[in-house]
Amino acid sequence: MSVTAPQGFRAAGVVAGLKDSGARDLALVVNDGPSRAAAGVFTANRVKAAPVLWTEQVVQGGRVHAVVLNSGGANACTGAPGFQDTHATAEKVAAALGDSAGEVAVCSTGLIGVRLPMDRLLPGVDAAAAELSRGDGGLAAADAIRTTDTVAKIAFRQGEGGYRIGGMAKGAGMLAPSLATMLCVITTDADLDAAALDRALRAATGVTLDRLDSDGCMSTNDTVLLLASGATGVTPGEAEFTALLTDLCQDLTRQLLVDAEGASKAIAIEVVGAASEADAVTAGRAVARNNLLKCAIHGEDPNWGRVLSAVGTTDAVFEPDQLNVAVNGVWVCRGGAVGDDRDKVDLRPRDVTITVDLSAGPHSATVWTTDLTAAYVHENSAYST
Amino acid sequence: MSVTAPQGFRAAGVVAGLKDSGARDLALVVNDGPSRAAAGVFTANRVKAAPVLWTEQVVQGGRVHAVVLNSGGANACTGAPGFQDTHATAEKVAAALGDSAGEVAVCSTGLIGVRLPMDRLLPGVDAAAAELSRGDGGLAAADAIRTTDTVAKIAFRQGEGGYRIGGMAKGAGMLAPSLATMLCVITTDADLDAAALDRALRAATGVTLDRLDSDGCMSTNDTVLLLASGATGVTPGEAEFTALLTDLCQDLTRQLLVDAEGASKAIAIEVVGAASEADAVTAGRAVARNNLLKCAIHGEDPNWGRVLSAVGTTDAVFEPDQLNVAVNGVWVCRGGAVGDDRDKVDLRPRDVTITVDLSAGPHSATVWTTDLTAAYVHENSAYST
Repeated sequence: MSVTAPQGFRAAGVVAGLKDSGARDLALVVNDGPSRAAAGVFTANRVKAAPVLWTEQVVQGGRVHAVVLNSGGANACTGAPGFQDTHATAEKVAAALGDSAGEVAVCSTGLIGVRLPMDRLLPGVDAAAAELSRGDGGLAAADAIRTTDTVAKIAFRQGEGGYRIGGMAKGAGMLAPSLATMLCVITTDADLDAAALDRALRAATGVTLDRLDSDGCMSTNDTVLLLASGATGVTPGEAEFTALLTDLCQDLTRQLLVDAEGASKAIAIEVVGAASEADAVTAGRAVARNNLLKCAIHGEDPNWGRVLSAVGTTDAVFEPDQLNVAVNGVWVCRGGAVGDDRDKVDLRPRDVTITVDLSAGPHSATVWTTDLTAAYVHENSAYST
Repeated sequence: MSVTAPQGFRAAGVVAGLKDSGARDLALVVNDGPSRAAAGVFTANRVKAAPVLWTEQVVQGGRVHAVVLNSGGANACTGAPGFQDTHATAEKVAAALGDSAGEVAVCSTGLIGVRLPMDRLLPGVDAAAAELSRGDGGLAAADAIRTTDTVAKIAFRQGEGGYRIGGMAKGAGMLAPSLATMLCVITTDADLDAAALDRALRAATGVTLDRLDSDGCMSTNDTVLLLASGATGVTPGEAEFTALLTDLCQDLTRQLLVDAEGASKAIAIEVVGAASEADAVTAGRAVARNNLLKCAIHGEDPNWGRVLSAVGTTDAVFEPDQLNVAVNGVWVCRGGAVGDDRDKVDLRPRDVTITVDLSAGPHSATVWTTDLTAAYVHENSAYST
């Protein structure tokens, strides 16, 4: 059901020949309106790929007619020629749709520092435009943006009054892409203006995709786009829409988490008792990025000392002798020292919850990560990614 | 030659029975004077082990008579009882030396969150005091502080006028200990006061041990101590002493780097063309902590896109299209885009140099790290560390 679940959208996914594997590698999503309101959030990396630089400009106008996405090459660190390639791709889409390039967003994912084979990509755009559909197109598009993703990630939700939100994603997280990048396109047939979409998207991704941190590495290409066709004519309340969008983003986040490269555990770091939500996120990220802890969890070792070491590197408000840590519900650390018997912790399930109580206030946040495994090392050392 | 190379120092390393392996696990270093001037630098982690809290107080007095170090237990996150254990250890050393505990420093390394077996540790102190010597004692002490270190790390230097500096270390780096902790004791028979020692130690460690970052994880126990006996009566110029001390610290840093857990590559990240030294360090650390790059280097893949992605996460002064990156001397990235042929890069040697030119100023800094390997994952997941 993907991005074509809402009315007013068509999509396609085709083989342009960018991937050596011969798998689908080019996706097109078109908003047939009547509205073209759109919003986007992008990587915070200062080294931004050409398609990010282009699409940030497009989204500033508040309108997106179509999104073209390719796997098989990130078009990052490719200089002015790379930016021209992105521009040419947008022009090609615009020509196929009889429009101007200024409302065509472009996303790319794959190896950094390599030019895209435009002689294959541009014909792929025509092929995708010819195959645009509401039926299978959404699934084909979700398939075409996969890189090391073992499955396509899609989700949809139905809101009150009959509007829908649909989405597709690839990668391993907004701030922690393993094979280059997290790309996500979300569509809705609700009727909301660009400013409302922007607020809703930032609120939703801020507590979901933004808090998935598989290996602490930030991509040059991360992009999340939200397109509204307004085809139902329904204008939901902003709070209601934001809640539904957040729920959908959480669904996609979960799918990305469990499919992260080489991971054998899906770890939720729940920080509670924080003086502020920012403190909770800061502490959660520090724990999520601690290689020693990630190795320990892989070894099913409830090594809470690693959690305290990680929290201790942050500027969050806490006193070391008031920290409490639970692993899968067992409070193995109380008051900054030894708590309940660590042998009671069962770390065999794939899902692991580490709860950190900062004992400093009423705020909380959850950050998701994975364990660090030999498989992760292998995937990222055995060949260029 | 270790810590007993300078005159005025005796040392010992004994089996107290803290390690299951039956290897040496308790070291004692005694400064026989006439001076007891001393300085120390400690982990920046806010979760500090009991011996760090104790020794910070001791060093504030500017005088250290003896240092007792144990492997086999970090005495971190052990609450008030753990602090009492550290205090009791210092008292035991003081009693053996006929002194007060206020000038006895304590260092511990090993598993976090476990009390030390004081019934074995305290008799070990007596045994060490009985074995203090200038000859073999320095080597035995360096051996006793090893955890996963495959070799003892020692160094010494001779200054003009005949004074010496000697040192021993264990672990995998000030800010990046793999098995818990970096401990380092440095001795000199030069005659310098505590303030001069403090300035020299901060300057020397700031550009050496502080810039070794094997896995980005910060210990609860890191401690570097500098003790001066003044036994030669030589008072070197501060700049000369600092240079010699820096050279010795660099030697120990190198030894720690090549012995880091599970590493197959010793990687120097040289950042040049920075607007400030702080910018160079910031950019270097970001590169050193990038798991994807560390995996790529393990796979002997000159994946310079990972370098740019890492630099892009920092607030250092640079323009993305003016970044240059060389791997082992080949400028594979020029002007933020593809540079020389990456096939020219030879990554087979153990030593790897990644040069990052920020094109933003005259400053530079080097940060050292290791590759990320399946062996690292195994060492830190197969058993509790």
